[in-house]
Amino acid sequence: MRLQRAIKKMDTSLDHGIVVKKENIFYLTGFFPTAIAMLVLGDFPYLAVSEMDSALAENLDIEIRVMKSFKKELKFRGNVGIEKRHTTVSFVEEFLKGCKIFDLKFIDEMREVKDKEELGLIKKAIQVTEDVLGDLTLLGVSEREAAAEIVHKLNKVAKAAFDPIVASGVNSAVPHHTPSDRLIGSTESVLVDLGAGVGHYNCDMSRTFSATPDEKFKEVYQAVAEAQSEAIKHLRPGISAKECDTAVRGVLREYGFEKYFIHSTGHGVGLEVHESPRISKDSEDVFKEGMVLCIEPGVYIPGWGGVRIEDVVLVGKKPKVLTSFPKIRF
Amino acid sequence: MRLQRAIKKMDTSLDHGIVVKKENIFYLTGFFPTAIAMLVLGDFPYLAVSEMDSALAENLDIEIRVMKSFKKELKFRGNVGIEKRHTTVSFVEEFLKGCKIFDLKFIDEMREVKDKEELGLIKKAIQVTEDVLGDLTLLGVSEREAAAEIVHKLNKVAKAAFDPIVASGVNSAVPHHTPSDRLIGSTESVLVDLGAGVGHYNCDMSRTFSATPDEKFKEVYQAVAEAQSEAIKHLRPGISAKECDTAVRGVLREYGFEKYFIHSTGHGVGLEVHESPRISKDSEDVFKEGMVLCIEPGVYIPGWGGVRIEDVVLVGKKPKVLTSFPKIRF
Repeated sequence: MRLQRAIKKMDTSLDHGIVVKKENIFYLTGFFPTAIAMLVLGDFPYLAVSEMDSALAENLDIEIRVMKSFKKELKFRGNVGIEKRHTTVSFVEEFLKGCKIFDLKFIDEMREVKDKEELGLIKKAIQVTEDVLGDLTLLGVSEREAAAEIVHKLNKVAKAAFDPIVASGVNSAVPHHTPSDRLIGSTESVLVDLGAGVGHYNCDMSRTFSATPDEKFKEVYQAVAEAQSEAIKHLRPGISAKECDTAVRGVLREYGFEKYFIHSTGHGVGLEVHESPRISKDSEDVFKEGMVLCIEPGVYIPGWGGVRIEDVVLVGKKPKVLTSFPKIRF
Repeated sequence: MRLQRAIKKMDTSLDHGIVVKKENIFYLTGFFPTAIAMLVLGDFPYLAVSEMDSALAENLDIEIRVMKSFKKELKFRGNVGIEKRHTTVSFVEEFLKGCKIFDLKFIDEMREVKDKEELGLIKKAIQVTEDVLGDLTLLGVSEREAAAEIVHKLNKVAKAAFDPIVASGVNSAVPHHTPSDRLIGSTESVLVDLGAGVGHYNCDMSRTFSATPDEKFKEVYQAVAEAQSEAIKHLRPGISAKECDTAVRGVLREYGFEKYFIHSTGHGVGLEVHESPRISKDSEDVFKEGMVLCIEPGVYIPGWGGVRIEDVVLVGKKPKVLTSFPKIRF
């Protein structure tokens, strides 16, 4: 059981571990809070939930304490582990005055490697996402309409994991473009970035389409596709995320596009759309068997447009690409 | 200009103020980051953005610094103000080692009182929300389908501010019920909680419907409506939020329903769906002219169902209810 594993991983010098991040609470208890909640790890673990959540937090393998007021009912002392990346300074001042603070980073690390059940849910999310992508009208509608259609189709069978990006023509030069009222024309490219959520697990993928690709588009697409293939070759246990990111930049450099790759190579996906590990220049992460990663190199040329290709890949001795939506072949 | 006002409000003993919360950066600069960003307040304020956002952060009245690596390029010393409620412990360890930390809580306070332009956007968001609510099919569809329909209609003209709640019959006893595949029958009540976002400003409102209300439903509805009216009378400058919350509980106590009111009375709404002030038992906030608040008492009876009525109200000598969607009159 994950909760017991987590408690075992906790440094024995800690009096308590306090988990506040909802995805982490879900991961360890099976309960996804809809309001403030604290999972308190230690010899006598318990889950403090708000009154609002009391009817939902039932039949769990952990003691539930329903709080009328977290502020008044909870105080901690001694050595306390927190999720430093997720816990605010206010929280520490309010609940942990006088405590010595340590980092519970092992929870994010546990979550990096997916088990069979988690992998099954991610695969379902991918299936829903690819079905929606295959059934999409892009030509002649506005970016906003196309994005609304994606969300609607995802929500009918599952859940939109995030606000999709639909960026046509020159708009695709902005990686996080907000879908606008611009109509999508038949002679330009369209970048679509979308994902479904199933049972709290997410997919995140991108494709760039073009009905009438010119030479420039073909060259950029080819460069991005090649950079992505190169990245995927690196998704093996023991290889560093930084090395993978460097390899991607190397391929794009050969094409003269390195300076147009203005974000990182990728990230873990699971309970969150973006989670540990990070595949970037600054990353200190190392790949482990069973990680599920989004690999998303892109080239964004101001005034022209952009190409991003994003797939979900399972790390292993032989990396396995889980997404199967066709790419353009020239 | 808000940025200058904020800098003036900053304690003169501070060397820097560092704003990381996206809504606060937008509020002070007009730029809504899509990736990590830091607004650095001081004698020479600047906005540090990621390369991804460089094309979006243009034509602002502040110096822009595009970061290739925040970690490597930014370091701070001395007395530093941060948003303690929003800034993580990791951030402090990474960027503010050795600094003396203070709270920049005045930004949240500035945001509490809305100016004319902000009020205009909230009113537009309300209009979109009420149009969608009035055009909704609830009978004979599942909660999930109804919720998907709401999101789609909101996204077509604006943006869904949050995942709507659609809770029918007994499901409405859970305040944050997740819409399920349960079909909405004609003889039961339905609770709908929804909101649009327009120009980054949000609406948040709820109605509970019943085509065939029985005596019990009428009594609960009456109690909640009366509690809400009582709350609204308190939305005047100088009255404390706690007093307002207490008044709501008092009305529900008279009906014998106080123990079924398991959340707070309300909250500010604006750039965030839930923002300062909080109207709760523990609140230390005091109402100010120009605050825009969601007032949402509810009664949730396990095994029976629930009623919530939520309206958006402008605080003033004469409080003004901005939402106008009809309530049930018996």
